[in-house]
Amino acid sequence: MPKQVDHRERRETIARALWRVVEQRGIAHASVREVAQEAGISHGAVQHYFATREEMLVFAMDFASEQTSLRVAASLSGLGDPPHPRDVLRAMLAEMLPLHPDARATSRMSTAYVLEALHNPNIHTRARDGLRQGRDLVEQLVRQAIADGGIGPDHDPATETNLLLALTGLTPLIELGVIEPEEALAAVDQHLDRLFGNEA
Amino acid sequence: MPKQVDHRERRETIARALWRVVEQRGIAHASVREVAQEAGISHGAVQHYFATREEMLVFAMDFASEQTSLRVAASLSGLGDPPHPRDVLRAMLAEMLPLHPDARATSRMSTAYVLEALHNPNIHTRARDGLRQGRDLVEQLVRQAIADGGIGPDHDPATETNLLLALTGLTPLIELGVIEPEEALAAVDQHLDRLFGNEA
Repeated sequence: MPKQVDHRERRETIARALWRVVEQRGIAHASVREVAQEAGISHGAVQHYFATREEMLVFAMDFASEQTSLRVAASLSGLGDPPHPRDVLRAMLAEMLPLHPDARATSRMSTAYVLEALHNPNIHTRARDGLRQGRDLVEQLVRQAIADGGIGPDHDPATETNLLLALTGLTPLIELGVIEPEEALAAVDQHLDRLFGNEA
Repeated sequence: MPKQVDHRERRETIARALWRVVEQRGIAHASVREVAQEAGISHGAVQHYFATREEMLVFAMDFASEQTSLRVAASLSGLGDPPHPRDVLRAMLAEMLPLHPDARATSRMSTAYVLEALHNPNIHTRARDGLRQGRDLVEQLVRQAIADGGIGPDHDPATETNLLLALTGLTPLIELGVIEPEEALAAVDQHLDRLFGNEA
């Protein structure tokens, strides 16, 4: 057991080094060599934990998704049990946008992963499945809110789900400094208010 | 004059070759060498038209924006003069999403350019200014629609503008095959219907 824990920890350390490389230099630099250097360990040590660059990327993305989920869960603690679907959706969207350093690291990892997927069939399958799972989770929340009456019965769950996920499209505006984090959150809130019929 | 036309044409040919490299292989491959090869001209010839890779990238992005604007204008012809702000917004959003081959090429160029901007200060300035200009254009349409009564007076123009631009966040869902083009357009229409108060 201690050995397994150590194995997992080392893989997470490497994954975080990969995030930093992607965030600061771009995914083109996310080679085993540069990631090893960033992690402060040898090339061979990285290869001990990941047989290939692709395996390393896949783990780093899965770890980014896990960490994002943990941040969402943390921001929901104390918001009721079970929390209101609107609160869950807001927390998910807020943590998917690059509004603070940890979220920026995972957001950039995620964007780079989608671009990598366009030219790598294995990554494509993984990225598509990951996005589908995330989408299914959001659709479940939308359907629950419709069933609970939070969202009106005239709404199409699939379309509303796609519109919620589309809010990650605020990312380039935030990243390039065209809008401020609070303006991004105001947009998310406006969308949720309209969807949940809380408009003034 | 004929010489200038030829100069412009050659630059556009190189830009289209760069788009293909970005679309098919990713921006990491968009070197002067690979772009020259894709364009079927010599490395030296590309350098005659663009002193640096950066200059080539900037031109290719400006050209992508121009071509997108031309497609928007073409899809608006016959839709009234001046066309309705809702039609203009729908045409802009439809052409910004990767829903057909030309739009996919310019969309991927645009996504790659934003990522490049994160690690290149010159590209950052250009990309930010370009995004601001596009955003200003959308906000102008939103303000016009509020003035005309198409959008209710209770709407905040800045927030609604950000929400409209956020719809480009449907891109990864389309690119990874999680949703179909018609589902993306249904989401755009639903958002516009709600914004323009045409909801059933």
